[in-house]
Amino acid sequence: MSETVFIAGVGMTPFGKFPKKSLRSFGREAAVEALTDAGVSPKDVGLLACGSARTGIYQGRESGVGQLIGWEVGIREIPVYNVKNYCASGATAFNVAWLGVASGEHDVALAVGLEKMSTRSGHSRPLTADGMELEGDLGFTPPAYYAMVARRHMQDYGTTREQIASVAVKNRRAARSNPRAQYRDEISLKDVLRAKPVASPLTLLDCCPTGDGAAAAVLVSGKVAARLGRQRLVRVAASVLRSGCYDQVKDMTVFDLDVRASRLAYEKAGIGPDEIDLAEVHDAFTIGELVHYEDLGFCAKGDGGQLIADGVTEIGGRLPVNPSGGLLTKGHPLGATGVAQIFELVSQLRGDAGDRQVLGARVGLAQVSGGFLEGDFATSGITILTR
Amino acid sequence: MSETVFIAGVGMTPFGKFPKKSLRSFGREAAVEALTDAGVSPKDVGLLACGSARTGIYQGRESGVGQLIGWEVGIREIPVYNVKNYCASGATAFNVAWLGVASGEHDVALAVGLEKMSTRSGHSRPLTADGMELEGDLGFTPPAYYAMVARRHMQDYGTTREQIASVAVKNRRAARSNPRAQYRDEISLKDVLRAKPVASPLTLLDCCPTGDGAAAAVLVSGKVAARLGRQRLVRVAASVLRSGCYDQVKDMTVFDLDVRASRLAYEKAGIGPDEIDLAEVHDAFTIGELVHYEDLGFCAKGDGGQLIADGVTEIGGRLPVNPSGGLLTKGHPLGATGVAQIFELVSQLRGDAGDRQVLGARVGLAQVSGGFLEGDFATSGITILTR
Repeated sequence: MSETVFIAGVGMTPFGKFPKKSLRSFGREAAVEALTDAGVSPKDVGLLACGSARTGIYQGRESGVGQLIGWEVGIREIPVYNVKNYCASGATAFNVAWLGVASGEHDVALAVGLEKMSTRSGHSRPLTADGMELEGDLGFTPPAYYAMVARRHMQDYGTTREQIASVAVKNRRAARSNPRAQYRDEISLKDVLRAKPVASPLTLLDCCPTGDGAAAAVLVSGKVAARLGRQRLVRVAASVLRSGCYDQVKDMTVFDLDVRASRLAYEKAGIGPDEIDLAEVHDAFTIGELVHYEDLGFCAKGDGGQLIADGVTEIGGRLPVNPSGGLLTKGHPLGATGVAQIFELVSQLRGDAGDRQVLGARVGLAQVSGGFLEGDFATSGITILTR
Repeated sequence: MSETVFIAGVGMTPFGKFPKKSLRSFGREAAVEALTDAGVSPKDVGLLACGSARTGIYQGRESGVGQLIGWEVGIREIPVYNVKNYCASGATAFNVAWLGVASGEHDVALAVGLEKMSTRSGHSRPLTADGMELEGDLGFTPPAYYAMVARRHMQDYGTTREQIASVAVKNRRAARSNPRAQYRDEISLKDVLRAKPVASPLTLLDCCPTGDGAAAAVLVSGKVAARLGRQRLVRVAASVLRSGCYDQVKDMTVFDLDVRASRLAYEKAGIGPDEIDLAEVHDAFTIGELVHYEDLGFCAKGDGGQLIADGVTEIGGRLPVNPSGGLLTKGHPLGATGVAQIFELVSQLRGDAGDRQVLGARVGLAQVSGGFLEGDFATSGITILTR
């Protein structure tokens, strides 16, 4: 690949339940903010990649979401890629935008991720991964699956229920000062443990909410970056997607696709896990964050519970994880998440994150897992950004 | 872009109504044929792009279709891009595969397009473009729209009803020897004119059928092409996508997005419309083919009816169009179409097209229009291939 790619601007709507707001309005708001932040005109955008996971099933609009947003912001007559990759749809849109610029084919690309989950046109199936109808009917939904992961992790590694619950407490605390987070009120360990049971040992507060929202990023070539001035630019050191199946019959506590995708990203970036200053990881469920510490090489296998107990992943710790509040607290509008992680990393690497700023952050990593059940199909997305 | 891209292999299932066959089986069949044709192992594939328009709405599988097909053929741990762009979904998948190889990031990419329309899980909305619910409720469906285009073309340019109907007759005749076509029995002009009225002046035989099917193409870099031996390779001279809105308030008889996309493709390829030896165009409705002759510069504006009357676009004419039978006869499983057009061009440019062979064909063009109603969103895809 010939071109180094930079992120020149980011945008993000508040996440939450806004049943009266339209799908397009979310995309417009995030895209306009990103373009304004970048100082780039809609006319300069050469490629638009739009990630959403469920707009067909929820809104009857399976194609054309990117065109809709492009129209809203004044972008016409460029290639638009509408991509669908479960919870990794936003990361996939980011990757397509990256590929478009890295290839030298385009100088400016806009990546948008969005989802509207608070209103669904008549769709009542449980929120399983696509194609998992049987599992949905049987109640083997994502919370049930992650509950099994939690039990196994507790049994194999002595991880405590309190360590698992502390992920929710930490991420709520981080999000206090994130005006875009779906929840900002603090919670205690007791709150998590005593919340409504969902799938033992997980309670409602161990599970991310559903919601609406969008995020956007403007990616540019070195040529455009030089014109914009480099002081607020962030460099894309690696953008890796790996699709396949998680092999969790062997070990439920490892997301092996994420292990291999992250190793490839470290190799491409020439950066190791010990050099990461902060990370946004896929904490759709509390136990997920602990497992991903291990998957990403932030600690040895089985030590995830201890890592959080030692305060390493708090803001102020050695390797803050999910300073945005993560999916648990910031929210998880499926297709928006991958790009919202980029929004947080860019904010942090620029020093714009206010009270949740990770001091001196130079290298950030984002990880997202899309689709997850054994036998279904998944995509792991890893992005490494540097300042 | 650094790399010249070649097509090393293609595959395609028969198109038709196969309610008992699964979505994945179509994709597998086309992908295996393309890989075998290319002489490439699934393990060599570095990127998989999968285009489908309606698998979320029809099968409840909005994400993960590409992963499903990858799994079926033994492809794992690579980036999978599931793309959705109306009837241009297949062309978009082809374009992503092209971008992946042209960029130098991948040496081998697999593009698959597919759709299964004969069985739909409880979805009964008329077949409008996504997001056109009001228009669907009012009966302003694609046949009604194209009927208006036909009437306007007849009024403005003196195009006759018989010239329009002759597109269906020509494309049926071409498809007689296409074993993959949904319909192969010949029809007469009288058959078309006397068929069940759909939207005056169009009858059932002026309209493409719905159906199931898949097509696939293997794209390779020059490095891999050299290893495979060049005798059966076809070069991608241009792959262009342009998304936006058709401006048909001004003139219903022009698909302006296709006009501009084709001009850009001609420029990129360094090839003019007079150098095209054969074309596959988007004849979802008979009148569409005549309009696209004009859009693509095959004749002057308004002369489409005369072009077919003069026999120019017959097999054996100066510029055969839709020798495969086109969408009208070969069939139109939405997401499959863009890649099925590539299948036909490659077969023709290799001299493999049997009784429907266009003699001496060296340059082929494919054109697809996805989404089309004024105010909704569209994508035009143009591909130029050379031998």
